Amino acid sequence: MIVTVIVTFIMQRTSFKSFKCPAARALDSVGDWWSILILRDAFQGLARFDEFQKSLGVAPNILTRRLKHLTDEGLFERHRYSERPAREEYRLTDKGRDFFPVLMALFSWGSRHVPENDLAFLLGDPASGRERRTVLVDAETGEELKPENTSLLPGPGADDAARERIARMRAWYLGMDA
Amino acid sequence: MIVTVIVTFIMQRTSFKSFKCPAARALDSVGDWWSILILRDAFQGLARFDEFQKSLGVAPNILTRRLKHLTDEGLFERHRYSERPAREEYRLTDKGRDFFPVLMALFSWGSRHVPENDLAFLLGDPASGRERRTVLVDAETGEELKPENTSLLPGPGADDAARERIARMRAWYLGMDA
Repeated sequence: MIVTVIVTFIMQRTSFKSFKCPAARALDSVGDWWSILILRDAFQGLARFDEFQKSLGVAPNILTRRLKHLTDEGLFERHRYSERPAREEYRLTDKGRDFFPVLMALFSWGSRHVPENDLAFLLGDPASGRERRTVLVDAETGEELKPENTSLLPGPGADDAARERIARMRAWYLGMDA
Repeated sequence: MIVTVIVTFIMQRTSFKSFKCPAARALDSVGDWWSILILRDAFQGLARFDEFQKSLGVAPNILTRRLKHLTDEGLFERHRYSERPAREEYRLTDKGRDFFPVLMALFSWGSRHVPENDLAFLLGDPASGRERRTVLVDAETGEELKPENTSLLPGPGADDAARERIARMRAWYLGMDA
């Protein structure tokens, strides 16, 4: 039983670094679920270890590790706000701030699928006080991204396996494999 | 050491069910990193256990558990495609398909921050063959969601702690706490 747990833990911590898929690499860069909630808190103005800990109720050793990982990956930078005693806070970098749409897309999905009475928060427009609903669109055409109108293209690092995968996906969308 | 690993594992599996934040609940509903990659594969037309396993190189026991979780949470439904032998495949439900923008936002973030030569895939428009860049906008106004123009509103399940959090976030955006 203990061995199973350990093996499971190790498997779950498999790195996705070797995957050349941007989504897999993104997951690796962020780290884990706690990291996403830490980023969520950072967007709400939290910056200090104690603030994150109080907000999340996460064990200090995990929080330490997650903050270090997010800093190593360039989503946070440390900023010393007190010399005596020496104290640092965590500020979002441009890369960290750029994670905002991912978080908002996740938040929106939750809003649509969590039972209404369990929703403590909604997204709002602070200017009008109106609730915001979100949609992910093509930056150029404004077209909403859907599985039906979005495919993969080979990137600079594409190998034969990647090209095969792209070919299979195209076939699927064209209904040839349905 | 072994105890540390086990404790860490248990802590990491803390449920976010008690959180009333839609993002935290969304994470709970999806499960873990593997689940996101399983969903990614499902959007590329994969549906069968062996296909997911080959694509991800994930241990069978983890894949079994993740597929069950995603089915229990209503993102997949089982569909029997063969009677003899009895074989089932996993098909995205509406709730599962609705996860597409989250996945695409994550993919886009990865595309922007992973070294270019490590990118095997880009998002494309199958009609024009053009690469797609994405932006998350307000469905009504078309305005791009940014931390500066997005706040929280109290939802139906908001308690005092939630209202306090919202007040603190507003203060931050108004620069009163900067």
